[in-house]
Amino acid sequence: MFYRGNMVMFDRLIKKIDETANPSVVGLDPTYEMIPDRIKKEMLGAYGKTPKAVAEMFIAFNKGLIDCLYDIVPAVKPQIAMYEKYGLEGIRAYMETIGYAKEKGLIVIGDIKRGDISSTAAAYAAHIEGVSIEGEHFDIWNEDAVTLSPYLGFDGVGPFIKPCNELDKGIFILVKTSNPSSSDLQDIEIIIDKSQLRWETTTLYERTAELVNGWGKLAMGKSGYSKVGAVVGATFKEQGGRLRKIMPDTFFLVPGYGAQGGRGEDLKGFFGPDGKGCIINSSRGIIAAYKNDHRYGGGNFADAAREAALNMKDDIKEAI
Amino acid sequence: MFYRGNMVMFDRLIKKIDETANPSVVGLDPTYEMIPDRIKKEMLGAYGKTPKAVAEMFIAFNKGLIDCLYDIVPAVKPQIAMYEKYGLEGIRAYMETIGYAKEKGLIVIGDIKRGDISSTAAAYAAHIEGVSIEGEHFDIWNEDAVTLSPYLGFDGVGPFIKPCNELDKGIFILVKTSNPSSSDLQDIEIIIDKSQLRWETTTLYERTAELVNGWGKLAMGKSGYSKVGAVVGATFKEQGGRLRKIMPDTFFLVPGYGAQGGRGEDLKGFFGPDGKGCIINSSRGIIAAYKNDHRYGGGNFADAAREAALNMKDDIKEAI
Repeated sequence: MFYRGNMVMFDRLIKKIDETANPSVVGLDPTYEMIPDRIKKEMLGAYGKTPKAVAEMFIAFNKGLIDCLYDIVPAVKPQIAMYEKYGLEGIRAYMETIGYAKEKGLIVIGDIKRGDISSTAAAYAAHIEGVSIEGEHFDIWNEDAVTLSPYLGFDGVGPFIKPCNELDKGIFILVKTSNPSSSDLQDIEIIIDKSQLRWETTTLYERTAELVNGWGKLAMGKSGYSKVGAVVGATFKEQGGRLRKIMPDTFFLVPGYGAQGGRGEDLKGFFGPDGKGCIINSSRGIIAAYKNDHRYGGGNFADAAREAALNMKDDIKEAI
Repeated sequence: MFYRGNMVMFDRLIKKIDETANPSVVGLDPTYEMIPDRIKKEMLGAYGKTPKAVAEMFIAFNKGLIDCLYDIVPAVKPQIAMYEKYGLEGIRAYMETIGYAKEKGLIVIGDIKRGDISSTAAAYAAHIEGVSIEGEHFDIWNEDAVTLSPYLGFDGVGPFIKPCNELDKGIFILVKTSNPSSSDLQDIEIIIDKSQLRWETTTLYERTAELVNGWGKLAMGKSGYSKVGAVVGATFKEQGGRLRKIMPDTFFLVPGYGAQGGRGEDLKGFFGPDGKGCIINSSRGIIAAYKNDHRYGGGNFADAAREAALNMKDDIKEAI
């Protein structure tokens, strides 16, 4: 009854990756500072110095980017924090961005990193499940997949398994993030075997990976990849390979390429032996490319983004 | 310039707790099922089977609760997931609830459990910092404090320290949550000393507590408690005492009382030696009390909530 497609998420994502020959995703994470002057002026003129003006800036900026990118990238990943910052108007911009991206045939990964206890996680699952009100169904958020935080354990993930299996949806659980202080918790050394003669240890992120791999069995896709994916930062090359071994059937969402320091050559180990199962994200490096290239300006920010996206595609292709 | 009060958060919270002689907080976590029939009918009649109708139900329900509770409890804690479930309209209800609670003098803790890398965490910090647009400042979200997830380490917390110190705000970081599967990650045994003759171990949640205690030094309040608080579930009595020792200057937000199984008598160890530094949350047990008490019905849901809140106050008072 809920099933509205012939292919499930990740199978569909893999098909889009094959069509574009590009395992990358563009992070639509606009900031006020990134907005080209012309758009800024227009919206401040129309709406004043208000959150509504910023929301309209983000929508115009994102639509310009999507128009120049939708035929060469398979997916976009809006980071909800950038929109949530501006309250209701900001979230409206997030939703309009998602709607426009889906119209253009892009897969949308909502970077929401939610995580809570079971009844609350069930409410967050509306992101991929929608809500029913007295029999009327609303796909309010409409993401194809979302990111989740694992700190609360399976309780925070469980309610998302049903929409993954019954709808055309997926999730990516944080395993090893791309930021420097990810080591604070994720790299902590933990004990896995305390037998009489030796103590065997691993790290928290590897233990999280084992959990994610186990949870993934609850939602396998036809492609051989689970609809429960993992976030694995591009900034940690060695960890990527180790995590691929722990999670052979897990789709990886890999942030940290470009502006955060990850390079194509570091990413080989993140892919499966079939050269699939992985999508690399770049945000600022693509959407704000015009700021760092003297050939471009605010008037052709989208062209700069397209060139940066094609360069990224080549960089990754060389690596795998 | 940003400083708008004579007391910082937690000092202000402690004063409200003293005034009401009640270290508890009511979780304003409405569900569609909880709404009394009369309100449901009215809003479905006015707005149809729509998210707007549900938003208006939540607003009416919450205002009724706040009117009956604001003189006996110091604070409320709306769980944003319950509102986010219904998209823009739901989030509008979240914001209106916050506005109304603050009008009535209540401290508002936004249960948002956000956590992300630094630039993104800075965007989420708008929850307590507001946003500036070309010199115009907007307190868009307006919470007094918010909850945060620690999985990304200090990068996810750092941007909140400044508004904690410069504004009248606070944060609570998840340490040990109240749900059953909190053990998946939080109870993992970790190594803290691997010297030649012995390996000393602790748990991840205790290590998180040490981190939170350290981060807390960056934002101490006048009361002796840091503006960086911790979430410590009421469902784990022994852990509460251990965590109080690790975090002597940390304000505890304690969920899991009531519907989740935590009892007043279990909570003594969560408080500091001064009998302060702790606030206990109950959600369903208060706001849906009318559902489990034959003396009440949907027509007097708020009276039932008031009685339940007074009972909880007595239960906690006996314990400390």
